[in-house]
Amino acid sequence: MDFSSSERSLDLTQRVRDFIDSDIEPAERVIAADVAARRAAGEDPWPGHPLLKELQGRAREQGLWNLFLPAGHEGPYAARFGTDGGAGLSNADYAPIAEAMGRSFSAPLIFNCNAPDTGNMEVLLKYGTDEQKAQWLEPLLDGRIRSAFLMTEPGVASSDATNMEASAVLDGDEVVLNGRKWWSTGVGNPDCKVAIFMGVTDPGASRHARHSMVLVPFDHPGVKVERMLSALGHHDEPIGHGEVSLTDVRLPATNIIAGPGRAFEIAQGRLGPGRVHHCMRLIGLAERALELACERATTRVAFGKPIANLGGNRERLAHARIAINQARLLVHHAAWKLDREGSVGALSEVSEIKVAVPQMACDVIDMAIQIHGGAGMSEDFPLSAAYSNARSLRLADGPDEVHLGVIARILLHPYAEKASRS
Amino acid sequence: MDFSSSERSLDLTQRVRDFIDSDIEPAERVIAADVAARRAAGEDPWPGHPLLKELQGRAREQGLWNLFLPAGHEGPYAARFGTDGGAGLSNADYAPIAEAMGRSFSAPLIFNCNAPDTGNMEVLLKYGTDEQKAQWLEPLLDGRIRSAFLMTEPGVASSDATNMEASAVLDGDEVVLNGRKWWSTGVGNPDCKVAIFMGVTDPGASRHARHSMVLVPFDHPGVKVERMLSALGHHDEPIGHGEVSLTDVRLPATNIIAGPGRAFEIAQGRLGPGRVHHCMRLIGLAERALELACERATTRVAFGKPIANLGGNRERLAHARIAINQARLLVHHAAWKLDREGSVGALSEVSEIKVAVPQMACDVIDMAIQIHGGAGMSEDFPLSAAYSNARSLRLADGPDEVHLGVIARILLHPYAEKASRS
Amino acid sequence: MDFSSSERSLDLTQRVRDFIDSDIEPAERVIAADVAARRAAGEDPWPGHPLLKELQGRAREQGLWNLFLPAGHEGPYAARFGTDGGAGLSNADYAPIAEAMGRSFSAPLIFNCNAPDTGNMEVLLKYGTDEQKAQWLEPLLDGRIRSAFLMTEPGVASSDATNMEASAVLDGDEVVLNGRKWWSTGVGNPDCKVAIFMGVTDPGASRHARHSMVLVPFDHPGVKVERMLSALGHHDEPIGHGEVSLTDVRLPATNIIAGPGRAFEIAQGRLGPGRVHHCMRLIGLAERALELACERATTRVAFGKPIANLGGNRERLAHARIAINQARLLVHHAAWKLDREGSVGALSEVSEIKVAVPQMACDVIDMAIQIHGGAGMSEDFPLSAAYSNARSLRLADGPDEVHLGVIARILLHPYAEKASRS
Amino acid sequence: MDFSSSERSLDLTQRVRDFIDSDIEPAERVIAADVAARRAAGEDPWPGHPLLKELQGRAREQGLWNLFLPAGHEGPYAARFGTDGGAGLSNADYAPIAEAMGRSFSAPLIFNCNAPDTGNMEVLLKYGTDEQKAQWLEPLLDGRIRSAFLMTEPGVASSDATNMEASAVLDGDEVVLNGRKWWSTGVGNPDCKVAIFMGVTDPGASRHARHSMVLVPFDHPGVKVERMLSALGHHDEPIGHGEVSLTDVRLPATNIIAGPGRAFEIAQGRLGPGRVHHCMRLIGLAERALELACERATTRVAFGKPIANLGGNRERLAHARIAINQARLLVHHAAWKLDREGSVGALSEVSEIKVAVPQMACDVIDMAIQIHGGAGMSEDFPLSAAYSNARSLRLADGPDEVHLGVIARILLHPYAEKASRS
Repeated sequence: MDFSSSERSLDLTQRVRDFIDSDIEPAERVIAADVAARRAAGEDPWPGHPLLKELQGRAREQGLWNLFLPAGHEGPYAARFGTDGGAGLSNADYAPIAEAMGRSFSAPLIFNCNAPDTGNMEVLLKYGTDEQKAQWLEPLLDGRIRSAFLMTEPGVASSDATNMEASAVLDGDEVVLNGRKWWSTGVGNPDCKVAIFMGVTDPGASRHARHSMVLVPFDHPGVKVERMLSALGHHDEPIGHGEVSLTDVRLPATNIIAGPGRAFEIAQGRLGPGRVHHCMRLIGLAERALELACERATTRVAFGKPIANLGGNRERLAHARIAINQARLLVHHAAWKLDREGSVGALSEVSEIKVAVPQMACDVIDMAIQIHGGAGMSEDFPLSAAYSNARSLRLADGPDEVHLGVIARILLHPYAEKASRS
Repeated sequence: MDFSSSERSLDLTQRVRDFIDSDIEPAERVIAADVAARRAAGEDPWPGHPLLKELQGRAREQGLWNLFLPAGHEGPYAARFGTDGGAGLSNADYAPIAEAMGRSFSAPLIFNCNAPDTGNMEVLLKYGTDEQKAQWLEPLLDGRIRSAFLMTEPGVASSDATNMEASAVLDGDEVVLNGRKWWSTGVGNPDCKVAIFMGVTDPGASRHARHSMVLVPFDHPGVKVERMLSALGHHDEPIGHGEVSLTDVRLPATNIIAGPGRAFEIAQGRLGPGRVHHCMRLIGLAERALELACERATTRVAFGKPIANLGGNRERLAHARIAINQARLLVHHAAWKLDREGSVGALSEVSEIKVAVPQMACDVIDMAIQIHGGAGMSEDFPLSAAYSNARSLRLADGPDEVHLGVIARILLHPYAEKASRS
Repeated sequence: MDFSSSERSLDLTQRVRDFIDSDIEPAERVIAADVAARRAAGEDPWPGHPLLKELQGRAREQGLWNLFLPAGHEGPYAARFGTDGGAGLSNADYAPIAEAMGRSFSAPLIFNCNAPDTGNMEVLLKYGTDEQKAQWLEPLLDGRIRSAFLMTEPGVASSDATNMEASAVLDGDEVVLNGRKWWSTGVGNPDCKVAIFMGVTDPGASRHARHSMVLVPFDHPGVKVERMLSALGHHDEPIGHGEVSLTDVRLPATNIIAGPGRAFEIAQGRLGPGRVHHCMRLIGLAERALELACERATTRVAFGKPIANLGGNRERLAHARIAINQARLLVHHAAWKLDREGSVGALSEVSEIKVAVPQMACDVIDMAIQIHGGAGMSEDFPLSAAYSNARSLRLADGPDEVHLGVIARILLHPYAEKASRS
Repeated sequence: MDFSSSERSLDLTQRVRDFIDSDIEPAERVIAADVAARRAAGEDPWPGHPLLKELQGRAREQGLWNLFLPAGHEGPYAARFGTDGGAGLSNADYAPIAEAMGRSFSAPLIFNCNAPDTGNMEVLLKYGTDEQKAQWLEPLLDGRIRSAFLMTEPGVASSDATNMEASAVLDGDEVVLNGRKWWSTGVGNPDCKVAIFMGVTDPGASRHARHSMVLVPFDHPGVKVERMLSALGHHDEPIGHGEVSLTDVRLPATNIIAGPGRAFEIAQGRLGPGRVHHCMRLIGLAERALELACERATTRVAFGKPIANLGGNRERLAHARIAINQARLLVHHAAWKLDREGSVGALSEVSEIKVAVPQMACDVIDMAIQIHGGAGMSEDFPLSAAYSNARSLRLADGPDEVHLGVIARILLHPYAEKASRS
């Protein structure tokens, strides 16, 4: 057993942290003030702030760009589009970097490592044709455009993907899309130019061969952002989550990724690393919340003592310390297993972190809010937005309950087999 | 023991519930759409909607007005300003009515029973001079104006009231106010015309005789709403919580309520019933969240079953059933004790509900959100706002930790005495 | 709403508490020392101590005897066998008395109010023939004999009563019993002379008409106590829980209570009040654990302070105060509802207390153990036995999960109906 | 990062697991039956069973002996007294082996790896003189004798070690011991021949230089086992925990380990690895409880389904899976850090596992008990004893609260420093 990170991972993590401290955090304050001012003035808060592009440029110059690109799948793009030093990173090496990025809400975007773009780029890397790569992957890797992923639907319980009602019907050498999707992250960004849409192609096929994934130019007629959604009161500008309708969106059948009926197969591979990234970012966010709590607890005084020394506060901070450390190790282990055994071999591990980490983050952030008093609920601290983020991830990418079901199925499999034999 | 409510309480509760169903809920949908539209159009979302005044008129006609007026303190106002049938209600009789009101965010305002106006009116009833009553209490009872309560401060840990930095300095027959307050509920409402301000008058006096409460006309020079605050992303229009600065606000000393140095005494009496009201409204809110969860769980289908029948969902719903029932009984008992023994006699009981109920409501609402999936986080259901409301009450009117301290002090008092004797 | 107890209930509760303090507690110390000595000397620890009978006599003289006898069902026995003043008590009136008894492990036995005798006596009162009453009920009411209830089986999941394998087969005018039962409380007591046995009579009948209850003289051939069981290491002398085999136990068919096939009906009525009694006794036990914790926390010193003032201890004590108070109110309310609406009307309420109270008691007692340090785990304090008792009741009389299922079924019924109609 | 164990650790772990399955488990059933029979017959259950010695012999032959011997401290003993292959193991390498041993209650004893002998042997290895080693360490390594550690006292809160009242007073070239100790593990074993006693030598010295550790021949006049204690009803034969009095026990001053006043320094080094061992054994125990729960849940049927498929049971099993995995990683990491940075460098990490693991084990075992129904509480399954074991470790070697204090102190140190500077 060796819990140390590789030299390369350590180096990149440190450089990401330094860049966040020196460049991103000051800029975030400027941008937040600007968004608030625009909102107060009744202007559209959605257009990205010019500082974001500038920061992206600086990050890229420093080699802190597309660090998510997975070892073994980065192909010819590593050299051209960043990934400091050339080759992609293993999940284990990327994990601490993702944690560092998670400390800031805008860092993932600035390093071109934000969801859902990373997942979409991975899909294109693994399953895209040369044409699809040229048209969409390269500008995404270049940071010139952004993308969305259209999967969850408002009309059905989307925790059961077979409930999906949206359709991607073949008609000659075209495919026609209809349906309504929501919680489509990224559609609030004016740079969002393409979406990956999932819909039913063959309702009569076997359960996991019915659906297709289709590349949809976001300005195509019939595609409409109906509204932007708030999650626990937060709109998460400038990315945002929206409700999108697709009405008779007619596209060449070549826009189907990897061919009709392969959506489940693609989704499976897409979600393992994506969940590791989400969880690692939440570890970073929880760590930051704990830091804020420690700072507040040692500088505010009540009843003649720093708040840290009142009642059970030290115990709460200590429990948070334990909870984050446990969760981080669980994610590191899942990343390591994912590297060695792939998505199928790490199925339980990925579901375990998906259950454990968002709940842990909610608990730690909630504690930090309480330590901050009313200020913790307000926009003066990033805690309210952090809570919304962590809470959302108990639902996004599969609710806790679905993942618990996966874990239980794998855990009980040998026992159920044995019981059925006797 | 008799757990039945009085006839009068049952009757008023039913009428309040009917009015909410028939009049308020449909109007709330109209208002919410209007606020969203104004916000989207960049207009000020704060001005109250005309429907609110209309609903207030209808509620008053039906005798559902100022029901909070406490038996024994309603004085000559009961007859003139509503309180169906004349006399005020005991806390025990009012509790189920407050629960009914808590099911809707705007109902308390419409029935003229919302915080902080109710607490402010009680203070004026008990401690106000005839002049103060004529000038401020009557228009408040009449629903013509609204009010604010300026106590919590951004610069210090306000859980310890002795930290307070704002000042109310006597200067001849005037009093001069300076300081900065926040989480001042009601200041977003354009009808807010008066505030009760708490500040230090005599820093050298004994711990509980330093502070005064002063009536501040809200349009007085030197009073400024610096900004409106969001709580977990919610602004709670049209009441709202703000940050308010007071700069050299010079008022006649007769604006001091009950005379200089009596703020703690007044606050003590103000908070008992107020906390019971808050808690009962949260019971109503939690009950509504459970209803929504039951409805969603029986109508959405995943993996071939209603969601209710998946995994631990039935157990979660059952636990919520137990939790709400326990909490309601605890509040009813505290209300009953408050009626019999007053604020001092019910000190532990009131702190007990203040700890138990908001946490219970957070848990139940969070469960309901999870049952709803992404929809539960969005503005399509009242759950996100409900969560923000319940979570805020773990901090407002004293954080959990302060109340736990009160409970422990009372619990341990006889043991500590005995230990010190031996 | 009126949370005060009746005069009669208050008076009996006080007298029970006084008797426990003055007579039972000192005796318990003598008996415990004696059991320990006998065990250490390798003697049988099971025979009851003579002090128990003496205490029973004194309790009876003072009218503190058979207080469980339910109003309306006490028949001609109230006058002859105690129940101070004549008439039986309502569940609401008995509840605080049961709480007082629960503070001591032997008090219920001494007041002739212990499970399973109380339930067995109620069954005989309601369903017994005159002969059955003369033979078994009168000596039970007289405290001359004790009884057992044979229901749970080692071989099957007894949470589902339809799993039951034991049989009570009719053969002419006889009934023949076979089967193996366990967790049969009371069979360790040498005075145990009769048991109520539940078995399958007609496997082909409808689900709730298959089983019969049969009175079994405990010295009948074929009845054998196979072993005494420990629960979390505790044997609960001198009552104890055992495993009992019945092999071709042939009895007159007149020993069947209320006739063949009526066991479920009888069990239903038996369990409502029994669960209220269990829960109220646990409230008393939890309250005693909290008292011990407060005493220890104020008298032991570590790091220069009474333990109460270290870390989160005051908060833990305050949370226990809240938890007990909530749970007590829930039980009082269930008792009141049981009095007004009977077992069926109070079905959810009784299941709610059966879930809430044992878990609450486990939590409070566990906290008290922690406050006591190692001493809390040892036999020097009643906490270890109290924990075993409370933990057992998360399984006995239906595990938590079965009761949660009942609560959810009742809660969801109207929603499921509505959903099925649409 | 590399989460794989070393070849040597994997090999030893597998051999330990195989030996437990093939040799220890069958023997445990024989011994348990024998202890029960002896207890039932009123005979002394304490004398060790001859099978234990036989199993120790077999384990030693297979090189599964003294595996705890720490790399770097095993000195000349590794070769003579086992430690398969010669050199001692790192904590990281030993951790999975300790987990395997923790699956069985008697395995640690059989492999000569049980507390408190391992800690005592480590103390002698590091601090013992040649004479002390020859007299006590060699027979301990040889398994010929066993030992005890006398630290906790019944009369004071021993969580604060400075409370200690027992004395080790120098008198010329002798040291005289007086005091009363309890929870002295091992004193029930007839082979217990030596104890390490901790007492105050110089009350006027600085806080951590007052106490000495003294080697006490257990048959020395003045040493008396007053009684054996039960922990949650369990006596843990054949090791057991006792209360021991020392009355004017006069020994040569050379029996003081490392010289007077060095007890705290010695204890510090002793406890790090000891806590890792305890925690790893609990991981093994929790894993076994989960296995039993899975087996029961898939083989018992209620309401027409395996118990696993009822209500929230699958979720409970999945949560246990996550909880054990998190805890195991936390212990592995602490062991790794202990190897690299020593007890001081891993101070927070060791306290973190000491808080996290026993509570996790309690939760998992309690869940397994509930899944087993009444059987889970009984002696038919190892769950009741497992619970007692896990629960004890929330108190033994420092209660949770003390460790939370250590974690918080380390966590807050930089913040408190910064706050004090500003």
